[in-house]
Amino acid sequence: MELIVEILNITTGGNRIVVISEQTATLLGIHSSDRVHLIYKGKDAIAIANIASNFPMNRIGLYDEIADFLGVKEDEKIFVSLAPVPESLINVRAKLRGERLRDKDIEGIVTDVVERHLSSIEIAAFLTALKIYGLSTGEAESLSRAMVSTGKSLDFGPGPILDKHSVGGIPGDKTSMLVVPIVAAAGYTIPKTSSRAITSPAGTADRVETLCPVNLSLAEIKDVVAKTGGCLVWGGSLELAPADDLFIQVEYPLGIDPLLLPSILSKKKAIGATHVAIDIPTGVGAKIKTRAEAYTLASDFVDLGKRLGLNIQCALTFGDQPLGFGMGPALEAKEALSTLMGNGPADLREKAVSLAGMLFEMMGKENGRDMAENIIASGKAECKMREIIAAQGGNPEIQPNDLPVGKYRDVLRSDKAGKVLWISTDDLVRIARAAGAPKEKGAGVVLQAKLGDTVRKDGVLLEIYAERNSKLSAALELANELSPIVLSKKPEERMILDQVPEKVSRDKPFSLDR
Amino acid sequence: MELIVEILNITTGGNRIVVISEQTATLLGIHSSDRVHLIYKGKDAIAIANIASNFPMNRIGLYDEIADFLGVKEDEKIFVSLAPVPESLINVRAKLRGERLRDKDIEGIVTDVVERHLSSIEIAAFLTALKIYGLSTGEAESLSRAMVSTGKSLDFGPGPILDKHSVGGIPGDKTSMLVVPIVAAAGYTIPKTSSRAITSPAGTADRVETLCPVNLSLAEIKDVVAKTGGCLVWGGSLELAPADDLFIQVEYPLGIDPLLLPSILSKKKAIGATHVAIDIPTGVGAKIKTRAEAYTLASDFVDLGKRLGLNIQCALTFGDQPLGFGMGPALEAKEALSTLMGNGPADLREKAVSLAGMLFEMMGKENGRDMAENIIASGKAECKMREIIAAQGGNPEIQPNDLPVGKYRDVLRSDKAGKVLWISTDDLVRIARAAGAPKEKGAGVVLQAKLGDTVRKDGVLLEIYAERNSKLSAALELANELSPIVLSKKPEERMILDQVPEKVSRDKPFSLDR
Repeated sequence: MELIVEILNITTGGNRIVVISEQTATLLGIHSSDRVHLIYKGKDAIAIANIASNFPMNRIGLYDEIADFLGVKEDEKIFVSLAPVPESLINVRAKLRGERLRDKDIEGIVTDVVERHLSSIEIAAFLTALKIYGLSTGEAESLSRAMVSTGKSLDFGPGPILDKHSVGGIPGDKTSMLVVPIVAAAGYTIPKTSSRAITSPAGTADRVETLCPVNLSLAEIKDVVAKTGGCLVWGGSLELAPADDLFIQVEYPLGIDPLLLPSILSKKKAIGATHVAIDIPTGVGAKIKTRAEAYTLASDFVDLGKRLGLNIQCALTFGDQPLGFGMGPALEAKEALSTLMGNGPADLREKAVSLAGMLFEMMGKENGRDMAENIIASGKAECKMREIIAAQGGNPEIQPNDLPVGKYRDVLRSDKAGKVLWISTDDLVRIARAAGAPKEKGAGVVLQAKLGDTVRKDGVLLEIYAERNSKLSAALELANELSPIVLSKKPEERMILDQVPEKVSRDKPFSLDR
Repeated sequence: MELIVEILNITTGGNRIVVISEQTATLLGIHSSDRVHLIYKGKDAIAIANIASNFPMNRIGLYDEIADFLGVKEDEKIFVSLAPVPESLINVRAKLRGERLRDKDIEGIVTDVVERHLSSIEIAAFLTALKIYGLSTGEAESLSRAMVSTGKSLDFGPGPILDKHSVGGIPGDKTSMLVVPIVAAAGYTIPKTSSRAITSPAGTADRVETLCPVNLSLAEIKDVVAKTGGCLVWGGSLELAPADDLFIQVEYPLGIDPLLLPSILSKKKAIGATHVAIDIPTGVGAKIKTRAEAYTLASDFVDLGKRLGLNIQCALTFGDQPLGFGMGPALEAKEALSTLMGNGPADLREKAVSLAGMLFEMMGKENGRDMAENIIASGKAECKMREIIAAQGGNPEIQPNDLPVGKYRDVLRSDKAGKVLWISTDDLVRIARAAGAPKEKGAGVVLQAKLGDTVRKDGVLLEIYAERNSKLSAALELANELSPIVLSKKPEERMILDQVPEKVSRDKPFSLDR
């Protein structure tokens, strides 16, 4: 039937959506979420129908996306009919019943996600089904390939392209800021894209941004890598796997993450990586709590990598406490730069040379760790980092003390003497974020005592930095309330961990870094 | 932070949703789907945040629902902050992990669905998880009770309240139109609410509407039932279980139906039913294909009924072909009225007296079937039906031939002689809908041959009625293409049912009538 267009002047965030009245819907035989077929001056499109009780009869409301696509104006007429159920939705329904999907089924779903033909209800159901049933390796491969083919890619020519990724989970992990210059200094190509923090005090992109711009275009990245062999950029706007960005929007409120492996490896594939070291922090302070889980995840990475033509090695790394001392963008960049200059925390340096060494050994070198260690010790890594900073548009002369940290500072002190038995990384994250990280780049916390350290009564456990006094107070209050650093106590002092049903542990959505 | 209000002048269909820019979201620490807390002149509310890249900074777009609730006007200022994750969402996430939910968890979820505090993404994930994990009887009970307590109820005073429900699946099933007057004629109270067709050629509400209004208010229903002992009304706008209506909107595009039992029984509970006969059509032409499935469903109904204080008996009924001959609102109402007057198809009459008889026996009567048969034979059922039609505002003198059926008519003929071996109910549904049912009340199909009937070459298999010539042609073409009525063939003539991967059976979302 013919309907008169009403331009709503609102974007949906991508989906092609129209609004019709209940009466019009009945006449067309349309239920909410059904698709309509629109024809306007020889152009046609499929859109999802929303039904509004108070919408005028004989009119159709168009959100910006579909109005722009058709190029239709207010009060013009378009022809509207019920469209058949899309093939991709039929396959989503099959997955809800637990059926295995074929390559082309998955490709169809991913394509329709990217082209916004599937609604968020349908994507949510699909992801929930994947989360509950799990993915076969075949499905994970299809998903990875579809996510690559529906996005942009980089090509750095022949020769090995190295990469490093951490599934995240321990705060203060600034290892990438060391691994990239070490590997690039050895003459290899390592185009590293990173994410910003979602729930942590800083992502690698947030850290590096305190030294130089990270929001580069694909062409700029090619230039930087051609000049220096490496880069440290934000991957978020590169559209390397746009399906994944859309999946994440739906996964975020649900606290699920069923596409972790395809998500990570599709982005590695899209930047042309051939050899990837994957860091899996394992321990009470990390997202992966047990070695059993870590080994399963690691072999899933290796298997899926093989299918995608990626050579992958995973490292299970110590995840019982934060890495280094600082947590928060500037505090962490400072620590990374100091470490490259020979003065940083031992655990950070050790982890960086081990991971870089693992990559060197994947390239056929012997004693990779020593090779990496020499590259730091000789100053070549620092030098390479300054080249990268310059190439990305930052000041290559920058010194650790040039990085502005929050001018408001206070400390959390110990109310007794003892040895550090346990550090709650979750609590530290909350405190650093309360102080303003990652939005306020100079905000965060610096640990003054780590596992096994001896602390005297009134000794400083934690420094807190904030850019605003109100945030400092809030963070300090939270720190006092949470007591994130626990000094040695005998277990018999407190045997009950939690109480049910009176108390329950608070909800913590589980999501690994991509 | 304070933001300037922009009234969007669009309804969301219920949810409280606001739109903010990406920059504002970053400043507030908000991700898409996070909740915001809004304060305006001492009034406060929680809304879901949508993030739009092109939305102006320092402004917040309000959809009608939230704007109306706060009573805020264009360009006024409101205070906006990040709200904590709602308890109900934490419980939805627990269900995604397969955890069992407690009574109050489920109550919280259902309440937040009705109050529109959960987004459609979150509801979709919840329903998908219920579909995959299945519901425990305890969860089904909690869901049913929550669905009743968040909706309106009817109270017809003391004494048994009888009801009848079919899970649907075979077209042409107009049994309720006979059972209600038979039971009411025996002096019992039977306030029957029904649905309209979603995917079938007619729902009971569509059929009855050709005789009298069905869109009655709760007060009008009480009047009709007080006068006549029964009613045949549309349940859709009564808000007996508004949560269910919202769940159905999300389930529909997904083709899933995990809340079938709570959905049906909550509505029975809300109208105050004490004794319910449930019809489970079982057979190749029905939704429930095998007896094993039917027995499982039946005992689930009985168990859940017990927990809810409902006395339930289920009947497994013959479901290999349509019931009676007509499919389509007016064609079916005509047949139901004829049957009450003594002239209808034998299978319809038999099913109606059996189900009514089952209810009589639940009331302690002996030979319920005979009692029901006598009520039809004596004309009391017809008389009661006319009372109900009058009470609901229809013409009590109406005769079957007064009902207008489509003036365009054609027939499908057999291309050979034989015995009817198989009837595709799915195909008949498609043909009847192509003819215009249920929107065009006079459209539909009338079977001229049922299972076991002998048909001569060129004999009429099916009559098609339409209100428009174009629909008649479309339906006839479809009928010729589908050949819904199969005459006896020896199985060895065609052994391959379907071919994979070249052909696949088309998607058929499974959804039982509520």
